[in-house]
Amino acid sequence: MNAGSHEHIVRSFDQEMSRLTGEIAAMGHLAVAQLEAAMAALAARDSVAARSVVDHDYALDAQERRISDDVLRLLALRQPMARDLREILAALRIASDIERIGDYAANVAKRSVTLNLSDPVPLVGGLAPMAGMAGRMVRETMQAYVAHDAAMANAVRERDADLDTLYTTLFRELLTYMMEDPRSISACTHLLFIAKNIERIGDHATNIAENVWFVVHGELPGESRPKQDHTLD
Amino acid sequence: MNAGSHEHIVRSFDQEMSRLTGEIAAMGHLAVAQLEAAMAALAARDSVAARSVVDHDYALDAQERRISDDVLRLLALRQPMARDLREILAALRIASDIERIGDYAANVAKRSVTLNLSDPVPLVGGLAPMAGMAGRMVRETMQAYVAHDAAMANAVRERDADLDTLYTTLFRELLTYMMEDPRSISACTHLLFIAKNIERIGDHATNIAENVWFVVHGELPGESRPKQDHTLD
Repeated sequence: MNAGSHEHIVRSFDQEMSRLTGEIAAMGHLAVAQLEAAMAALAARDSVAARSVVDHDYALDAQERRISDDVLRLLALRQPMARDLREILAALRIASDIERIGDYAANVAKRSVTLNLSDPVPLVGGLAPMAGMAGRMVRETMQAYVAHDAAMANAVRERDADLDTLYTTLFRELLTYMMEDPRSISACTHLLFIAKNIERIGDHATNIAENVWFVVHGELPGESRPKQDHTLD
Repeated sequence: MNAGSHEHIVRSFDQEMSRLTGEIAAMGHLAVAQLEAAMAALAARDSVAARSVVDHDYALDAQERRISDDVLRLLALRQPMARDLREILAALRIASDIERIGDYAANVAKRSVTLNLSDPVPLVGGLAPMAGMAGRMVRETMQAYVAHDAAMANAVRERDADLDTLYTTLFRELLTYMMEDPRSISACTHLLFIAKNIERIGDHATNIAENVWFVVHGELPGESRPKQDHTLD
């Protein structure tokens, strides 16, 4: 407990929670910015820019830790009940999902550095629409989170199937390309994993959307929830 | 609140927490059993057994939801402080990590069904030592969790680097094999993703170990924490 904690006690739970929500939304937008910077570095074969994305991932890790600490402090000081309690647990889970999204973005950047060590392969272009869709999903779940809009969250969740379709199509194209040109196997494998990373970002956006639903309705969106792992190839 | 909640209020927090810890440990052992069953089905090319692993994953999902509900109830009824609060938040995070381990085990089983549609490829054998090591890591983090043994947890965490080494070696062998026999590309790609799943299980065991440390010491194992994504290829 530091000298500032009295000041915190004076503030209302709603004020604290709204500050936390704002921090989480900023964290979400930073994660999307990381993904976009990683994709730009990949397209431009710019290893310097890619390394800067990898280096910047620490900021998201630090934000997640700070949010976890805030959640612990709020739980201890405020002992929130009912919807307040759900809101604070959702904050913890959402921050964790965003931290993972940042890890995937950093992994895209890391793989792009390795890709720059060999000749360019085509099909890199197919990743951009996937990343665009995943980034929009994350941004819109953040809007839904800040607005407590369960319907908007659910709309994002339903779009995850479209991202999976893009992923499956690209996956098959990459396999075909590898068979036609076995020298491209190593590079194409990195592209496969990059595509998988982006598909996983969509899954985390879906998790976040489910947590927004949980805050508003008091339960997860039920048995109709699509499984995490609905893509195989 | 159901009719049983009065009975719960009578029990001590420690009793409730010890029951929750037992449930989480059982969940951890079920996840390892799922991984082992998936690996056995893969080795035996037994699609029936593999499908049964996939079907059984719902049990882990249901356990995680029950544990989340218990955590919410305990937080609301008990308003725990300090170490009790850390313990209950760690329970929530650990259950979530175990649920993900179960998803990876189910994905191994799912991919093995697809592998059985084409000719067997060698190198499947290289997955068994990886899965054995990952399964042991999960089991030992569960022991460390139940015993509140931070040193044991840290020992598991340090072994994750060995799992990554196995993964990197197998990854390179698979790439070489694909280049030599391009007809194997599709099957080997599934093996690559299976290997990645097992490597990720090790990461989740590491997360669990860090949460055990957090319960005991009040903070995560600090900046020396290995990043989630220390494997590239």
